[in-house]
Amino acid sequence: MDKQMMATDADGAQVPDQVVIEEPLQIVIDGHPVAVTMRTPGHDAELALGFLLTEGVIRSRDDVRKIDTESRENHALVFLSDTAEVDLKKLTRHVFSASSCGICGKATIEAVTSQRPPLQERFEISRGVLLAAPAKLEAAQSVFARTGGLHAAGIFTADGTAQVIREDIGRHNAVDKVLGHALEAGWNLSRSFLLVSGRVSFEIMQKALAGGLPLVAALSAPSSLAVDFAVESNQTLVAFLRPPRFRVFAGSVTA
Amino acid sequence: MDKQMMATDADGAQVPDQVVIEEPLQIVIDGHPVAVTMRTPGHDAELALGFLLTEGVIRSRDDVRKIDTESRENHALVFLSDTAEVDLKKLTRHVFSASSCGICGKATIEAVTSQRPPLQERFEISRGVLLAAPAKLEAAQSVFARTGGLHAAGIFTADGTAQVIREDIGRHNAVDKVLGHALEAGWNLSRSFLLVSGRVSFEIMQKALAGGLPLVAALSAPSSLAVDFAVESNQTLVAFLRPPRFRVFAGSVTA
Repeated sequence: MDKQMMATDADGAQVPDQVVIEEPLQIVIDGHPVAVTMRTPGHDAELALGFLLTEGVIRSRDDVRKIDTESRENHALVFLSDTAEVDLKKLTRHVFSASSCGICGKATIEAVTSQRPPLQERFEISRGVLLAAPAKLEAAQSVFARTGGLHAAGIFTADGTAQVIREDIGRHNAVDKVLGHALEAGWNLSRSFLLVSGRVSFEIMQKALAGGLPLVAALSAPSSLAVDFAVESNQTLVAFLRPPRFRVFAGSVTA
Repeated sequence: MDKQMMATDADGAQVPDQVVIEEPLQIVIDGHPVAVTMRTPGHDAELALGFLLTEGVIRSRDDVRKIDTESRENHALVFLSDTAEVDLKKLTRHVFSASSCGICGKATIEAVTSQRPPLQERFEISRGVLLAAPAKLEAAQSVFARTGGLHAAGIFTADGTAQVIREDIGRHNAVDKVLGHALEAGWNLSRSFLLVSGRVSFEIMQKALAGGLPLVAALSAPSSLAVDFAVESNQTLVAFLRPPRFRVFAGSVTA
């Protein structure tokens, strides 16, 4: 996931440096190229699966028959099940908006929640579990330590066990990878939480909801729309999680 | 660009917190919606102009007759000149790849450099100018200080004068805003440089080249493809710019 490159430091000395690898991944569905994402190679099948889930293209693992990441470099060749009903037009939503009326944060939230109902009830974890999680994420961030160039995302159980942690140059990709892993493994995430190494935007909350995650914690800041979305969807949102401190922007944390 | 929200801290106390605003902006060209980007409101016309330039939709300021950001909330209504020859299909390249052959970092670079030739010669700035720049960027980052939630980008002259600095929740947006500002102002950027507050990926280098910037400096890490692109395009790339240290990954810095 990283490679050595030569750099020159401020004193003019030649120094080797570990640089995180960024390469495009093309996702192909039944022969049709549908998306290109710049990612850090590794766990490409998970990335493709998580991407298709969180973008609303597939609804379950059963929609996918096979993902081939071996035959062509930097390609994830996805083959759908005969029973899958997918909507490839969903993929274009970031580029072409079909909305002929107004566009605003509220409409953006409604566009998502109209397809994915809010959670039935809030999910809470304890203060102690929350405060212990960042160290576990950091311990698994092997490449970041060397390159400083990666985002991390992890899924944790309610008792604080790390279930899966992934790194990527793109923060959305890191989230897609852990959610793809969970989908492949068949996990029920209704009592798990997502921890991300950076900031938390609208899209991160949306992806978490698509994956069934009721709580998102972030080491850094939230956006206004992330908070609004969490309130609407009944997700719990914790940000600035820097032990011994954190701030809860939606929902609550138990003592 | 930020608003106050209530949060609960780790001790259970209710505290006000300034949260950066994230809202969608829909870019419309002559009545056709072409893109939605999640951005921090402010300087929307610059953002639209920079986006269209760096995505290869327009080639010069003359291609745009008017940008209306007042008539509809969260919309940038772009009206093209009669003489403009734009290719709206370019906008879909992130989503649908037209490439029927292989996809890889090398092909990605070639796809860009085939349309935008590498710079004729390397541009160098002095060690002192480089080391003084981060403090100038930080001084202008008013919202980041309050929210911790924003990326910043700035364009500086070869002698270290800050020409324009913009913040946004999206790092690509911050770069588009400064480049849009430069395009509107008619600046020649062949002896200026770009400074970004975070990491530097392939897309940042590509946007800088599209805007005519010969040097990119970043406070944080570069990706492998950013370095490869800088080498191919004759751009200078400085990363980990944390005075008194920095690392040069392509080109060089004068004493």
